[in-house]
Amino acid sequence: MSLTIKLTTTPHIINLNLHPKHRTKIPAYSLGVRPKPIYHSNALISILYNNKQPRMSQASASGSVIKSSLIEPDGGVVVDVIVPECERGSKTLEAESLPKVRLARIDVEWVHVISEGWASPLKGFMRENEYLQSLHFNSLRMENGTVVNMSLPIVLAIDDETKENIGSAKDVGLVGPDGDLLAILRSTEIYKHNKEERIARTWGTTAPGLPYVEEFITPAGNWLIGGDLEVLKPIKYNDGLDHFRLSPQQLRKEFDRRQADAVFAFQLRNPVHNGHALLMNDTRRRLLELGYKNPILLLHPLGGFTKADDVPLAVRMEQHSKVLEDGVLDPETTVVAIFPSPMHYAGPTEVQWHAKARINAGANFYIVGRDPAGMGHPTEKRDLYDPDHGKKVLSMAPGLEKLNVLPFRVAAYDTVAKKMAFFDPSRSKDFLFISGTKVGTISGR
Amino acid sequence: MSLTIKLTTTPHIINLNLHPKHRTKIPAYSLGVRPKPIYHSNALISILYNNKQPRMSQASASGSVIKSSLIEPDGGVVVDVIVPECERGSKTLEAESLPKVRLARIDVEWVHVISEGWASPLKGFMRENEYLQSLHFNSLRMENGTVVNMSLPIVLAIDDETKENIGSAKDVGLVGPDGDLLAILRSTEIYKHNKEERIARTWGTTAPGLPYVEEFITPAGNWLIGGDLEVLKPIKYNDGLDHFRLSPQQLRKEFDRRQADAVFAFQLRNPVHNGHALLMNDTRRRLLELGYKNPILLLHPLGGFTKADDVPLAVRMEQHSKVLEDGVLDPETTVVAIFPSPMHYAGPTEVQWHAKARINAGANFYIVGRDPAGMGHPTEKRDLYDPDHGKKVLSMAPGLEKLNVLPFRVAAYDTVAKKMAFFDPSRSKDFLFISGTKVGTISGR
Repeated sequence: MSLTIKLTTTPHIINLNLHPKHRTKIPAYSLGVRPKPIYHSNALISILYNNKQPRMSQASASGSVIKSSLIEPDGGVVVDVIVPECERGSKTLEAESLPKVRLARIDVEWVHVISEGWASPLKGFMRENEYLQSLHFNSLRMENGTVVNMSLPIVLAIDDETKENIGSAKDVGLVGPDGDLLAILRSTEIYKHNKEERIARTWGTTAPGLPYVEEFITPAGNWLIGGDLEVLKPIKYNDGLDHFRLSPQQLRKEFDRRQADAVFAFQLRNPVHNGHALLMNDTRRRLLELGYKNPILLLHPLGGFTKADDVPLAVRMEQHSKVLEDGVLDPETTVVAIFPSPMHYAGPTEVQWHAKARINAGANFYIVGRDPAGMGHPTEKRDLYDPDHGKKVLSMAPGLEKLNVLPFRVAAYDTVAKKMAFFDPSRSKDFLFISGTKVGTISGR
Repeated sequence: MSLTIKLTTTPHIINLNLHPKHRTKIPAYSLGVRPKPIYHSNALISILYNNKQPRMSQASASGSVIKSSLIEPDGGVVVDVIVPECERGSKTLEAESLPKVRLARIDVEWVHVISEGWASPLKGFMRENEYLQSLHFNSLRMENGTVVNMSLPIVLAIDDETKENIGSAKDVGLVGPDGDLLAILRSTEIYKHNKEERIARTWGTTAPGLPYVEEFITPAGNWLIGGDLEVLKPIKYNDGLDHFRLSPQQLRKEFDRRQADAVFAFQLRNPVHNGHALLMNDTRRRLLELGYKNPILLLHPLGGFTKADDVPLAVRMEQHSKVLEDGVLDPETTVVAIFPSPMHYAGPTEVQWHAKARINAGANFYIVGRDPAGMGHPTEKRDLYDPDHGKKVLSMAPGLEKLNVLPFRVAAYDTVAKKMAFFDPSRSKDFLFISGTKVGTISGR
């Protein structure tokens, strides 16, 4: 099944179905031509995304249903489990009558992620069969035999008391940290939360000091509860950044509005710098060379939990906006939005999640850096993951065959050319790395 | 591609191609009818496998090539990397000239396993791409896009000194613990051996005291070397049990000789008892009920490394023979052979390997017990794995879709019926478990 949208039948719509040949996997080396760095000098244009009506009506009277050219979401449909407004009253009443599960802050972030379909085809917190497949195979087999990627266990932990309180009830109400009813979890299944095994298989270590583990797994209950979500209303944070939190559906609409025939996603959790910008502009140039007419960049900073020494989201968003205002990236071909997922810092396991979620938002190209989702080993003086494993694992991951993985090329300041350029190891002394420390700091991890 | 064998065109050969419908997955519940226990009272028949000529010539002058009805091996062909006798002299000379890698005892067991094709399509020790896929996905994607199961990393560790000694050489000679040249490893690739990550992702714990880890990983080098094997001659142990070590090819020939139209494998690493026998006989009865004409049991004790407190192989083999001599199992429909793999005690991860290897030997049904390949947690008072996870993971594992997984039904002595029977929880006090301890001891783990 494909996403379909209604469009008026004007000639430029034909573009949406162009270049089917490009939807096959393009080997990374074919994109490996050495480019010139590109600087855009566009006039200052303010924030790119606005909530104005799309230029093409989605349900024009004269419109016919045509297929979007965007990559198909996992499972064929973007999951949306937000209760329609007309049913909110009755569902809220029902939720009030159910046994309650009190959510931690991290659980609310996952409710948000699931509710908008980032984890499609997942419709709720994982039941045991999904959990085991995620843990052992980093993927789920669907009923029709197709395989979708699912590398992180998306689970809800409860303690003994909550389990006892639920008893044999099949549906439960989910209550936010502030006591507000957020969702119903239906047809639940409760199973053991073997924390040691979950941690070992997700992170490849059980060393103390993993941020997500310390903050959210160690203090969590010894049971997991899976089921189908019905979220009573869209999750909002009221931090002045909610307008950046576009759902996969909203992003797909925006890409279609712009008549994107390729979408390349760049995940980051740190400030953007000119090295990133060079890479992103160069990627667009290479996609144009390959015959795409309008490749759009999804600049997609992660907005959920990050560790204490990462730069806070609000600062990063301001900095991203500045880069666009300064014309370093072209707002006409860039969409900046917040990816609402929390960080696991689980390296090769997590980068699959980062890529898979972007497929659901319409991206068919994914830029992967050195040591994606990596960090220092919590107890040893080394990187926790081999810095090359992320892109290797990503390029072989089940369910991601349809995604084009673009390895990140390292950029630095070329003191001879006096500008940012891709690092040339044959004259390494000519290059200055921005942080002045190691190459790793220039990655998108 | 399928295995083919030459057979004379006598009527009974037609049986080999019967029942294609049974090669689809049969849901476990359809086999879940409650049976009567069956005791065979066959006359004492001595050891079942002998090296006599198969009754059907494999290359009769009048023979035509027909397809075997046995399940296809992973990758289509059973790998055989044992050097033909006529090339042994020249290859041995070549091996002598190469840089050497000294093998540990466990490495020789893996050379044996790979050389005969148990790990098909693997042709040697894993290179990094195979290692990463095994570690993260428990499976390998082939060039044609098909997926085969591969849950355990089959790797060869070397230390810094050996790595330095190899230098840039692409081929190396493998030397056994006694100094004899065993094999050549071709087109090698050396990569880092991150022991912590390997252990965590394979066992789901890094707790000290895992037998395979303590014995073979902790003392091993910090590098892994992958490549294609050429084994100079078949691996033999000269322990009086080599005649039980049938290769996948030999087993397939034997199953074809017996005109098996279903092969059900039972892995065990402990003595067989009447509870097992009841189960195996009952499985055959159920397969006959399903329309198979001649289901053959592969009773397949594991012969490689086991932990110190497991019963030694020689004792187990003697006991298995006794069970057959006593007529508890029917030698006409049973093949006893040794599976040469070492044990990891890695539970749900390892049971996939146990099942996958038996596909390569022609088995299309696999009996899985409670807590397969499990053990007690090395530092905590509990099972290391959830006893139900093994069969759940096995039934969902990528690349094993073609295998019929048969859950083990627990048998015990029924003091009312005065015989072994499947445990009936509604009258649990009537049953005596053989060991007098817990149900776990009756499993095939």
